[in-house]
Amino acid sequence: MIDVNLVREAVKHRKARSEEFLGFEYLRFSDDYKDIPRGTVIFQDTVVWGYPHIGRIFMLERGLREQFKAPFWVEEKVDGYNVRIFKIKDRVIALSRGGYICPFTTDRLEDFIPLEFFEDNPDLVLCAEVAGPENPYIEEYPPFIEKDIGIFVFDIMPKGELKFLPQKEKMELIEKYNLPSVKVLGRFSVEDVEKLKKILLELNEQGREGVVLKEDSPENRRAKYITSYANLNDIKVTAKNMLQLPPEYYTNRILRLVLFMEEEGIERTSHLYEQLGRAFIDGLFDAIEQFKREHKVYRSFRCRFKNKENAVALLELLNRTTRNIQVIERDLKKEGDYWVLTFDKVFLNMTGLLGHLLSGGLVFD
Amino acid sequence: MIDVNLVREAVKHRKARSEEFLGFEYLRFSDDYKDIPRGTVIFQDTVVWGYPHIGRIFMLERGLREQFKAPFWVEEKVDGYNVRIFKIKDRVIALSRGGYICPFTTDRLEDFIPLEFFEDNPDLVLCAEVAGPENPYIEEYPPFIEKDIGIFVFDIMPKGELKFLPQKEKMELIEKYNLPSVKVLGRFSVEDVEKLKKILLELNEQGREGVVLKEDSPENRRAKYITSYANLNDIKVTAKNMLQLPPEYYTNRILRLVLFMEEEGIERTSHLYEQLGRAFIDGLFDAIEQFKREHKVYRSFRCRFKNKENAVALLELLNRTTRNIQVIERDLKKEGDYWVLTFDKVFLNMTGLLGHLLSGGLVFD
Repeated sequence: MIDVNLVREAVKHRKARSEEFLGFEYLRFSDDYKDIPRGTVIFQDTVVWGYPHIGRIFMLERGLREQFKAPFWVEEKVDGYNVRIFKIKDRVIALSRGGYICPFTTDRLEDFIPLEFFEDNPDLVLCAEVAGPENPYIEEYPPFIEKDIGIFVFDIMPKGELKFLPQKEKMELIEKYNLPSVKVLGRFSVEDVEKLKKILLELNEQGREGVVLKEDSPENRRAKYITSYANLNDIKVTAKNMLQLPPEYYTNRILRLVLFMEEEGIERTSHLYEQLGRAFIDGLFDAIEQFKREHKVYRSFRCRFKNKENAVALLELLNRTTRNIQVIERDLKKEGDYWVLTFDKVFLNMTGLLGHLLSGGLVFD
Repeated sequence: MIDVNLVREAVKHRKARSEEFLGFEYLRFSDDYKDIPRGTVIFQDTVVWGYPHIGRIFMLERGLREQFKAPFWVEEKVDGYNVRIFKIKDRVIALSRGGYICPFTTDRLEDFIPLEFFEDNPDLVLCAEVAGPENPYIEEYPPFIEKDIGIFVFDIMPKGELKFLPQKEKMELIEKYNLPSVKVLGRFSVEDVEKLKKILLELNEQGREGVVLKEDSPENRRAKYITSYANLNDIKVTAKNMLQLPPEYYTNRILRLVLFMEEEGIERTSHLYEQLGRAFIDGLFDAIEQFKREHKVYRSFRCRFKNKENAVALLELLNRTTRNIQVIERDLKKEGDYWVLTFDKVFLNMTGLLGHLLSGGLVFD
């Protein structure tokens, strides 16, 4: 249960705010507040906790020894955005990590999730990753999704509780309801580290993000471990809009990349050096060339909806919640069974800086 | 003259503090305060203003058109640390950019600067760059200084005034007293941009830092412009201690590098990509390997003194003023006419982080 006094305090400190969206009214934690994670939401008679942070290990072998006291399940980490899906009143909805009701994910749920799961289990929350080239939030996606999106369940939480069902129960429910899920790579112990290193090297070569490790014990300790590919790719994809992210985003990823190489015994080749340099330089050139052509730096997104009003609601949500980004609708039209929305995100910081620099402006740094 | 009320205010706001060092007592501006630049110092009857910030242009051609209204002098920018040298009581001393009396530079002045300049000109301040492999502050140095250091005058200020002598007067004094100075590349106007681009390309190929542009007019507008070599080299030299610098340090330099290439028409070759990747990756590998061998990340420095007590004073100053760095003396011994000091700077942030990560620690980011 959630402590009512703590909730009052959080509201007073502006860490929790009222939201009204898609016909729902609820309280949303916009930041962590004491033990309550960001993204926790409180509806009239339902609490859904925010998905808790999972710590990252930078060294596989030493990290396993340090963090785990029992065997653990290893699951693939899919590169997408985190949602929590559950039934409320008569609808099934999807919340973003930050606790917003996502009109896009909510719209598309029925295409991917057998909804009878929620008829039988109204008190359970599916925690899932949404990934693919046609999503409205992030530019990266795993190599195994060629179009549209996929939804991949990786945890199940009871409503009102900050805990997960044990792996066995989760896997049984996934099987019973034929839920789409992340790949479970197996149950391992610390002694299997060489096997795990081999798996990680393969994931790296296939351009996959990494793994989440979940201890098979009541304590359910957790950690994640990311491939050097994913770190390089993060840099490559975001360099065009470098000012939007905190600069630590880049320095952290370079450090992780080097530690992955170190642990996996990957040699420092010209090719690897070149990939890192290219990740930064090509993204920035791309921004400069686009600015010169169109006087703004932007990226186009495309995603499809069952219902037109959800597309409109998504644009409204993006405009309200993204900072330093202007969202411009390009097109919304029916294609077969779907409404296809295309829009641009204009990166205002990068656009402003390049405007200043390319016209000969002075910078004091 | 300096406004006494403003000085009182600055002291109250802790932007100016009393210092006592090498037998002098003075007030030092540790930060900019309103119009008074950081590094301004006030002795009993002498004020020496801090060296003002010079803005950077990222595009040469547009920048010249935008920033200058008259022809301008172009001087080489030497990659070292900034000092102000002047006579006070019966001594000639050197202040660091931040306004500390530098025991190292002060000790070595007589080796480089004809001190009769100050007998004839007790009210003038030489602004100079100190550069070379044997300096106690920075790891970079220009390719044309093979050992020890050099001192290169680039401006002359009257005491008590925040202004510089006109270029002609400065050049005459430099010639008359045979002062060592930065290379004056000539007087140019905006129309000479192609000539300037050629000069910059040559500086870049020679591994030099760039130029400072100084308008030949009473307004004396100024700007600096840096080569892509210098940006790459900054990354390469500091990557080993990546946590010490603000992360913007890196993202800024990558952006400058790309804009220099863009303006100079330098092609994006594999070699260039590789250089950037190598700059980051090799520095970090170096840190990891050193940590594994010696359980700390550090860099060794060496510099020579006329007087032993100045070496001791330098160590004291470094220990008092460098944050997140531990200074450890290795050796101080007489070699010929000099006392040669060797010491290590242990990078505590990087040492701590690698200690945590390499032993399998968890990071929440």
